[in-house]
Parts: sequence; structure tokens; C-alpha cells
Amino acid sequence: MDVAPGCFTVVAMSQLVLLGLYKIFVVYKEAEKESIHQYAPMFQDVHVMVFVGVGFLMTFLKKYGYSAVGFNFLVSALSLQWAILARGFFEMDNGRINVGITSMLGADFATVAVIISLGAVIGKTTPLQLIVMSLIEIALFATNEWFGMNVLKAVDAGGSMYVHVFGAYFGLAVSLALRRKDNPDFSNEAAEYHSDLFAMIGTLFLWVFWPSFNAALVTGDNQYRAVINTYFSLSACCVTAFAVSSLVANDNKFNMVHIQNSTLAGGVAVGTAADMMLYPYGAVAVGIAAGTLSVIGYTYIQPALHRVLKLHDTCGVHNLHGMPGVLAGLVGALMAALASEKEYGESLFLQFPARAPMNNTSALTDVNEVLKFLEPGDNRSALRQAGFQLVALLVTFVVAVIGGLLTGFLLSAEWMGQVPNDRFFDDAHFWEVPIDEPDSGVGGAAGAAAEAHSNPAFARKESRDSKC
Amino acid sequence: MDVAPGCFTVVAMSQLVLLGLYKIFVVYKEAEKESIHQYAPMFQDVHVMVFVGVGFLMTFLKKYGYSAVGFNFLVSALSLQWAILARGFFEMDNGRINVGITSMLGADFATVAVIISLGAVIGKTTPLQLIVMSLIEIALFATNEWFGMNVLKAVDAGGSMYVHVFGAYFGLAVSLALRRKDNPDFSNEAAEYHSDLFAMIGTLFLWVFWPSFNAALVTGDNQYRAVINTYFSLSACCVTAFAVSSLVANDNKFNMVHIQNSTLAGGVAVGTAADMMLYPYGAVAVGIAAGTLSVIGYTYIQPALHRVLKLHDTCGVHNLHGMPGVLAGLVGALMAALASEKEYGESLFLQFPARAPMNNTSALTDVNEVLKFLEPGDNRSALRQAGFQLVALLVTFVVAVIGGLLTGFLLSAEWMGQVPNDRFFDDAHFWEVPIDEPDSGVGGAAGAAAEAHSNPAFARKESRDSKC
Amino acid sequence: MDVAPGCFTVVAMSQLVLLGLYKIFVVYKEAEKESIHQYAPMFQDVHVMVFVGVGFLMTFLKKYGYSAVGFNFLVSALSLQWAILARGFFEMDNGRINVGITSMLGADFATVAVIISLGAVIGKTTPLQLIVMSLIEIALFATNEWFGMNVLKAVDAGGSMYVHVFGAYFGLAVSLALRRKDNPDFSNEAAEYHSDLFAMIGTLFLWVFWPSFNAALVTGDNQYRAVINTYFSLSACCVTAFAVSSLVANDNKFNMVHIQNSTLAGGVAVGTAADMMLYPYGAVAVGIAAGTLSVIGYTYIQPALHRVLKLHDTCGVHNLHGMPGVLAGLVGALMAALASEKEYGESLFLQFPARAPMNNTSALTDVNEVLKFLEPGDNRSALRQAGFQLVALLVTFVVAVIGGLLTGFLLSAEWMGQVPNDRFFDDAHFWEVPIDEPDSGVGGAAGAAAEAHSNPAFARKESRDSKC
Repeated sequence: MDVAPGCFTVVAMSQLVLLGLYKIFVVYKEAEKESIHQYAPMFQDVHVMVFVGVGFLMTFLKKYGYSAVGFNFLVSALSLQWAILARGFFEMDNGRINVGITSMLGADFATVAVIISLGAVIGKTTPLQLIVMSLIEIALFATNEWFGMNVLKAVDAGGSMYVHVFGAYFGLAVSLALRRKDNPDFSNEAAEYHSDLFAMIGTLFLWVFWPSFNAALVTGDNQYRAVINTYFSLSACCVTAFAVSSLVANDNKFNMVHIQNSTLAGGVAVGTAADMMLYPYGAVAVGIAAGTLSVIGYTYIQPALHRVLKLHDTCGVHNLHGMPGVLAGLVGALMAALASEKEYGESLFLQFPARAPMNNTSALTDVNEVLKFLEPGDNRSALRQAGFQLVALLVTFVVAVIGGLLTGFLLSAEWMGQVPNDRFFDDAHFWEVPIDEPDSGVGGAAGAAAEAHSNPAFARKESRDSKC
Repeated sequence: MDVAPGCFTVVAMSQLVLLGLYKIFVVYKEAEKESIHQYAPMFQDVHVMVFVGVGFLMTFLKKYGYSAVGFNFLVSALSLQWAILARGFFEMDNGRINVGITSMLGADFATVAVIISLGAVIGKTTPLQLIVMSLIEIALFATNEWFGMNVLKAVDAGGSMYVHVFGAYFGLAVSLALRRKDNPDFSNEAAEYHSDLFAMIGTLFLWVFWPSFNAALVTGDNQYRAVINTYFSLSACCVTAFAVSSLVANDNKFNMVHIQNSTLAGGVAVGTAADMMLYPYGAVAVGIAAGTLSVIGYTYIQPALHRVLKLHDTCGVHNLHGMPGVLAGLVGALMAALASEKEYGESLFLQFPARAPMNNTSALTDVNEVLKFLEPGDNRSALRQAGFQLVALLVTFVVAVIGGLLTGFLLSAEWMGQVPNDRFFDDAHFWEVPIDEPDSGVGGAAGAAAEAHSNPAFARKESRDSKC
Repeated sequence: MDVAPGCFTVVAMSQLVLLGLYKIFVVYKEAEKESIHQYAPMFQDVHVMVFVGVGFLMTFLKKYGYSAVGFNFLVSALSLQWAILARGFFEMDNGRINVGITSMLGADFATVAVIISLGAVIGKTTPLQLIVMSLIEIALFATNEWFGMNVLKAVDAGGSMYVHVFGAYFGLAVSLALRRKDNPDFSNEAAEYHSDLFAMIGTLFLWVFWPSFNAALVTGDNQYRAVINTYFSLSACCVTAFAVSSLVANDNKFNMVHIQNSTLAGGVAVGTAADMMLYPYGAVAVGIAAGTLSVIGYTYIQPALHRVLKLHDTCGVHNLHGMPGVLAGLVGALMAALASEKEYGESLFLQFPARAPMNNTSALTDVNEVLKFLEPGDNRSALRQAGFQLVALLVTFVVAVIGGLLTGFLLSAEWMGQVPNDRFFDDAHFWEVPIDEPDSGVGGAAGAAAEAHSNPAFARKESRDSKC
């Protein structure tokens, strides 16, 4: 009771500070009339992925469904408001941030990085810790994204580097910094039959709308290819994840964790090169690799990381976002190295802006006889562009790890408040829950029935150290 | 058994009468080819909100999930057919109603008013009562909407007055008229762990697609602003609802009722002014106010209304639609009072048609040098427009309350059939249910197990007074 | 253990063979820039229907939710990749298959046929059997669709003949061929309270997005009409299904099976004529007929087929897809017989390409003064077109039944592996399941609790004859 208002204060203050900053900085971007019809459908698809997709994907824990879907909701709604500002500060116009539907898409992308990190630490952190983490992460995300896109000029249509690699390794670093010396009670870290079905709602909406995610912020032919490539990569990844799951599982059965998560790795792994000339067979190949890598990650790598480093990863974001994101960065660099004007035509310079001819050159004049308004570039070669793609991947990884470790140390401070060792993965610590909340050791209602009161109202499990 | 066919007869007859009226009156609107691509995506989003969003939002009751999602389905499918006619009668062309995709959007909006009312009375009413209520409400809705939009010329992009205020106070008035003198058994009016998660499916789809709802029926710059304003209002509202929920709850925990409902109040509260020059900070401010108001409504106002007036409100529509809708009307009037040609440019007359110059004036000629086809208006001043906005809000409120009370008295007639006092919020009264239906007092399956038969088939709880 | 790798091998090999075939055959279609904005929103709606809609619709069985949503996922992801090829082989260009977003829509349609068949046999088949079935069915589907559309020139906007009739009767024929001489244990074939709610997620997404399904592959006025007609047919069907359900059920209660399935029959039944001049009242009439037919199917026809033919139909696809699909074909033929140039104008020849004037005729020249690029047709009369529509329906039915029977005989081979008679409708045979999986005879967790171990981990029910 004495500490809990801290959470209210931080959340409420954050919202009020955002209000003030919006008053000072944010105005409408001029509505180009067509943009609403061009962007709105894909924006809504991405919005579904953030709130329904990721929210429900994390409901697989039998006693942590409220927190999964609820904290994802809170953290996302705060992060996107803050991301509008944090990203906007890098492209201000006369001291104002012009906001339109592409800004909202950009903010949703930034939010995805935060909720990927959430997946690494959920169940072991308080809402206050998550809020503080989000505020720091968004700032760092915006800086890294700006650096990668504007200084390194590395492209990343589906955000596999700037969003997935960043979010995953930031979250894993936070989780590492927050690891407990003593042994918390992990007995609640288990699914039950229906929680696995709720999680599949998240999986399927993510899977279905991923083509929109990878295509939302590119245009023209690039957008067309991004939809097609993502469709094939995901399909091949899904089939592969089933196959490999049955290969590695006991008794050749399928494992729900793989089906919920590894089926999606193809969307991540194709992200950077989604709009490039990957061709459908290339997309299928990426999907096969991603599905295999992700199931192997869940089966062998994640337990090893926990054993060796005490690195705990609640949702296995390393297997869904981390490794497949790195794969995406490598595929992107490879495709960049192979990209030629012969294959792409003049659109090469739209695909890789840094490859465009430099200012005041006759080459630029020639190209602009076709493209009209091409911005001058750095006249990069294919290999040089590939090199910059790799540098962007490396920088993103390093910034995420260092930023995550520092954030994690901050969050581990005593005064910040911690989830008690015996309340891991337990909604009842933060939520008013009905008495039938599944109990550890026995699924479903049987456990609840055993402790049921005659009063059908809420049985609030009081917890003296409760902290929002 | 003797009375139940009444429901079949009314539903079947309604459908057949609709068929006849469609034969007489309804033809296709001429397809302007572009309109399908302009309207179809947002129409589908709105359609999801009506059937999935509202349907699942109401599944939070542990023993009333079939009815929540099922009666919402039935009532909506009937209401929208009837709304096509009821709204169409006001704009007939040569004795025919021309139906296109905007008519379908309008019918979906009308349906939302009905299912908001449903939220006030669900669990305490028979399907027959709900059907009769819908038929009356749609007629009244169409009349009030036509009067407000065409006579008062008060604008309301997201329907916060014509849909939300109307639906909420109509439903509350019906609920008041249906209140029981004796004390029904409210012990089934409780959530269980998984029913709360089902409800979150509804919440999130409503939250995610609300920008489409508020923007679906406006065009151009107005549509652009409606998407942006709604996005920010909802985000700020979500964060605020979490903060205030933890402040008012026992032990500073979060309360699922607030998260399921109050997070959405920002979509309602920004509805009337959604397409106006509210600016993102204005939208954030509206969201903060709406989230606070809604949680306070659930925590303090709703129990007081029940205690003082015996006004029972199953889903708390007063807190999600009623008060936030009134707030929306006031914000809309304020923005109308502040609207100047300086800020809006010529588009002021598209935003507020009644402010356009009158017919045969040089002012109209001047404006039409830019806008070409502007309809003449009433040359209203900003304050006068604001006044008409307030009148529309008041008229809507009064029509809803009086209409709801009269409808409620009709529905309370003995011959209409009533839910027995001991069958409130109980699916088994209307549905064939599996034996594991959660039982009052004990959540989940434990109760069912206690009364389980060896036969796994349906255990129909016979009820002599059963009435559809 | 010894046989299970068979499944892994077949799935993995299929995926690798697809990779090879894609390398050889598949290239990008040239991106017409507008097509992405025209097709992407409806494509995403259809994609939701395939994976979320059908997947969750089949989760109604209390112990088969993982398999319903999982096998639908696996089978669909494989089928669509294969359908791209199978359909593409019929329209190759210089030895290459040009793939774009309409190809993806076509592949999703083909996949729907397969997962309709899945609905007839789910719970009684192994994943290996389902995979083999899909591979055969897609090939046959593509051949029949090509024959119907290009040789018979019978139109079918929503695929009610080529997709629904084909998928339903193929699946029923497979089920017939797979029927057991001995009596399997059907005691798990029952819903529980929450599994019925999960199924409603599927129902509602199918219902809401069906207008996009019927309209996705037609254009212009036809697309406009397809959206409108489907909206009205589904609404009338929903209302009718509720009415008839209460009429035929015990005690006049509603039956969840009808609400989950029969409410959708209007989308099927209007499919062939969706883009024709059916008018809203015609669509309503079709919806009423479909809802009635489907509920009668579930109540009287399905049990009779099981009793007389031992034809078991898990999801009742005969009532949702089979009979309503035949109805759609008949309505389509009727509308074709009534179609005149007077009513459709020149667009008659876009609606029914075979009715266009023949090559090198003055009639074609006249029409092309309006339509510019009309392909020459066969100068068919209205009645002749209607006749070809009926032939297409008949051919589809016959191909489906014969193909399904032959496929079923193949699948019934001993070496293919069969689900043991005592493991029908049981996830635990194929999946690692948590210990709370609902147990037969007692719903929910009570049964699981009885056999609960102190260890909260998975209790894998070993099965010596387990087979993926």
C-alpha cells in the first residue's frame, strides 16, 4: 500500500508530461488526401498485431493471462505516444513535429520493439519496472533507428534489425541484469489447455497480418514484393516448424510452444530483405531456415542459456525475434551485395538510396530523366551497401545489449520494488482475480474449488508487498 | 413450451416482413467505382467491432457467454437489416431506397446503438424482449439521427451523440423500467478467469479499430484528422484508465472491468470532434478526461445509481458510452464554437455545412470559386453552430430516455414473458449447454464435475418456464 | 517412434520439393502499382478467414482444440504453397508462373477447399493422412477450377461451386472411405462451455469478412454488388438460423452448433451469384433459404447420413458447405438464365464472358465502342449460359466425390497409419498437452485434477502407436 502509489504516480505523471509535450511540439502533418487510403488498411493490420497479436501470444501462461494482455496494452499505449515524440525529435520542422498516419505506423513499429523486450521479462517484473523500461527503450530505439537509417543508410523494410534484433537483445540484457541470485519459484511458468488456445489467437493474427507489417512503410513495387515475400516465407516457416517440432519432441508429438512462436520466425527473418528481389523461392528458403533455427532455439539453445548464464527468457524472444532477426540482417546484407542496376533497373536507387549517384553528377542527371525527383546519394557500390547493412546490424546489437544491461541494473534497484520470489507469473499479485484462477500444480478450476468460499465474489489474495 | 414459439414466430415473421419490404423498396445505389476501395476496408473494421468487438466484450460473465455473443449476433443481424429501411425512408428517391456501402456503414452505426442498449439489460431479458426493443429502438434512432443531422445540422463524425448517448440512455431507461420489485438472484453476475480473457478479445478489437469507426463516414482531411485524433485519444485514455484503476482499487491492484471498458472511453469521448481541429494534444486531453471519468463511473457512480434508483447496468454502459458520449457532445460544441475560417480555410463549410453562406449570396459564389460544388448553408456563426450542437445532444438524451422508458414498460408486460428471478445471467435458460458450464459459487469445472453424469452428452437443465 | 518420422519426412520433403519447384518455375508478376491497394485489404480479410476463421471454428471439440487450430494451420500453409504451383501450371507464361497478389488470393481460395474437407474428417485422421489428402486435393481442385472457368466458362465469384461444393463432397467422400467397420469411441466428440466460445471466434470472423471473400476476385460494379449481396444474405441467414434453431431444438432453446455454423450458410449460398443482379431482396431470400436448409441439415440429415451410410461428418460440412453450395450453384444458374443486356448493360459481357459476341463480328465491334478491350466470347444465350453453370456444378460434384473416394481408399491403407479407435478426437495423441486437458465425461479440470501429479510439468500420455 505504501509503495503502490508509486506506479500510479509514474503512469499518471508520464501521461501528463506527454500531454504537455504534445501541446508544445505536435501538429498535424498536411493531409495528402490519398495517403489515408494508401496507409489506413495496413496501419490497422499492424495495430491489430501490436495489441491483439502480441497481447494474446503472451497469454500462454496459465496464471498470467490478465498481465500478458493487460501490461502489453498499457505499455503499448504509453510507448506509442512517447515514440511519436522520440522519433519526431529527429525530424523536426520549424520546431514542430508533424504527425500523420506514417508517424503512427512508425510509433507502432517502435512499440513492437518494447513489447518484444516485454516478452523476455514478463512474469518477473512489476508494471512500474515495465513502464520505466519502455520510456528508456523508446528513446534508445529512436536514436538507433535514426542512426541506422540516416547515417549508415542501411535499409530494413520490416524492421527486423531496428525492431526485432533491438527489442530482443535489449529485453534479454534486461532479463540478464534482473536475474535473481536466489531461486525464485518457477512453478507457475506453465501453460494450461485453454491458455494455449488463447495464445493461438495471438499467433494467428500475427501470422496473417505480417505481410502488412513488412510492407506498411515501403511503397510501389517494393511494397508489392514485401507482401509476396512475407507470405511465402511465413508459409514455408510454418510447415517447417511443424516438421522440426515433431522431430525434436518426445514421441514425435507436436509442441505448442513451437507452433505458437516458431511458425512466425519466417516473418522476422524475411523482414530486412522483404522488399528486395528475393523471389518467392528465396523467401521460401528463408522461411525454412527460420523455422528450423527457431525450433532448435526453443529446444536446445534457450535451456542452455538459462543453465549457463541464468538468462531466463519467458516467451523465448531469442528464438522468435533475436536469432531470426540476425538472420534477417544477414540475408539483407547478402541481397544488398547481389543487387544490381541490371536486376532492379532505376528502382535500385529507391531500394538503396545511398547507392544513388552523388549530387551534381551527370549520372544523377541521367537517372533523373527517368525518376524525376531522386535525391542524390553516396554512389555506394553493392558490396559497400552490404557492408553498411552489416554495420547497422552490429551497431543495433551492441546498443541493445549495453542499453538493456544498464536499464536492467537500474530496474534491479531495491527502491524500484521487485516481484517477490514466490509470486512469479502470478496475476493475483497485480490484479483483482476471480477465485477460479488456475492454481499451480492443478490446472483449471479444481484447485480454486478447493479453496472456494461460499461467497461468489472476488477472493483477493492479499499480499503485503503488493506493488503495481 | 407453450410460450416459446412466440420467439420463433416473432423472429421469423420479422425476417419475412423485411424480405417483403426489401422487395418493394430496396435497390442498388449506382456503384461509383472508387467507393468500394475507399469504404470497404473501414466498413470491414466497423463490422468486426459490431460482431466480434461488442459480442466478446460482453462475454465477461462466467455463465452468460453464449448469450452475450449469440444475442449480440442475432440482434445485430436483424437490426442492420431494419436500419437500412428505417434510415432509408428518410432519404427515398422516387419511392426507392438506394443501398450501397455507405448505407451499410450507416446501418452498422445504428446497430451499435442497439447493442449498447443491450449492454444495459443483458442477462435480465429474453431474446424476444431484445428483438422487440431493437425494432423500436432502430426506428427511434433513425428519426433522431435524421432530425439532428438534417434539421439541427449538428455534426457528429463518430456518432458519439446519435449512437453512444442515444444507445446508452435508451438502454438505461429500458433497464430502469424493467427493474424488479422483488430481489432477483444476482449471484451469477460474476466473471471467471477465462471469461475475462474472452472479454479482452472484444476490448482489443474495439480499441484497435476505433479510428476506422470515427473516420468511416467522413472524407478527405476530415477523415485524416479523425484517424489521428482517435488514435491519440484512445492511447491516452488507456494509460489513464490503468493509472486511475490502480488508484481506486483495493490494494492498488488493477481491476479487469476498468481495463475491459474504460480504456475505450477515449474513442467515445473524441467521437463528435474527431474530425475537427482538435490537434493531437487536444485528443490526448480528451482521452485523459474520458479514462478518468469512466473509471470513476464504474467505481462510484454505477453502484450509487443501483442503490438509489435500482438502476442496474450489466455492462456499465453509462460509464463507457453514456457519460463519455455526453463529454463528446460538449467537446464537439466547444470545438464548434472555436472553429474559424482562419483555421479551417474553406473546408470549414465542409466540416459544418450549416455555416456555409446562404443560397444566392455573393459569399457563396466566392467560396465556390474554390470548392466548386458547395451546397448553400444557413450562414451560421461559430457560436450558433455550437448552440445547435448542444441542442442535438439534449434532444438525443431526451428522446432516448423517454423512448427507453416507454419501451421498457412495454417489455415489462406479463404476456411478453420475463426471465425468472432465479435465472438471471444464466445461459442454460436459453441454450443447450454442455455439463461443464461454470456453476455459481465455484468457478470452472469443479461444480459441473460434482453433478456430472457418466453420459458425456448434454445435460439440459429443464426449465418449465423456459422462454426464448 | 518407429513410424512417426514418416510424418516428419513427408512434411519436410514436401517443403523441400516445393522450394525446388519454386526455384524452377516461380517469378514475380509485374507489379501494376495500383493492384496492391486494390487487393491487399480484401486479401488480408480472406487470409484471416482461412487461418483464424476456419481454425477456430473447428475448436468446438473439448479435447481437440490444439489439433483443430494447429492442423488447419499446417495444412493451409502447405496447401497454399502447392496451390500457387498447381493453379499456375494452367496459365504458365514462357515456362514461368507469374505470382502476384491475385495468385495469393487464388491460392487461399484453393486452400479453403482443403480445409472444408478437413472439417469432415478432423479428429479421425492423422496429420500424415491430412497432408497426403491436401496434396491430392489441391491438384484436383486446380484442374476442376480450370476446367469449369476456362472450358465450361461458368462463373463463380465466391467459389461456392469450385471451393465449397468441391471441398465438402471431396471431404465427405474421404470420410466415407475411411469409415471404420468396428465402432470407434466417439465419447470425446463433444463440446465444453469454453470450447464453444473459442469456436465463436471463428464463426464471427468468417461471418464478418465473408463480403470480402465473395468480392475479392471480381472488380468494378461486380465487386460492389458482391459486397452488398453477401452482407444481406448473411444477415438474413443469421436471423433465420436462430429462429429455426429454436424451433427444432428441445425446449425451444438455441443450439450452439447451429449458431456457429448455420449462420454462415448465407455466405456460401450467395457465392456464385454474389456479383449478379440479385438485388438486396434476392440476397435476403437466399439467406433465409440457406439458414433454414443448414439447420435442417444439422438436425435431421446429418444424423440420417450417419445412421444409413455410416457417413460421419465432424464439423457438418455437408450442412454448411455442401448443400448451401449446391443451392448457390442453382441460384447462380437461375440468375444466369434471367440475365439480359437490358438489365446489365454492356457489363453483361464482363459478368458472363462467354456471352460476349464472337471474334470478328460486328456485334463485338459495337460493344467495344463502349468497353474498348472486351475479349471475344461464344455469343451464348442466357439459357445456354445457365446450362453451362449447371454442368459446372455437376462436374464439380462428380469430380469431388470420385476423387474423394479414391483418396480415402489410399488413406485407409494400413501402412499409412490410422488413429486408434480409442483415440478419436484426442489432442493427446498428437500433441504434448498440459495435464488439465478436459477429460471425457467430466468437463474442465476436475478430471485432470484427479490424475494430477505433484509435478506441474507436462504429463505426456504415452501412446505406443503414436503417429504424427
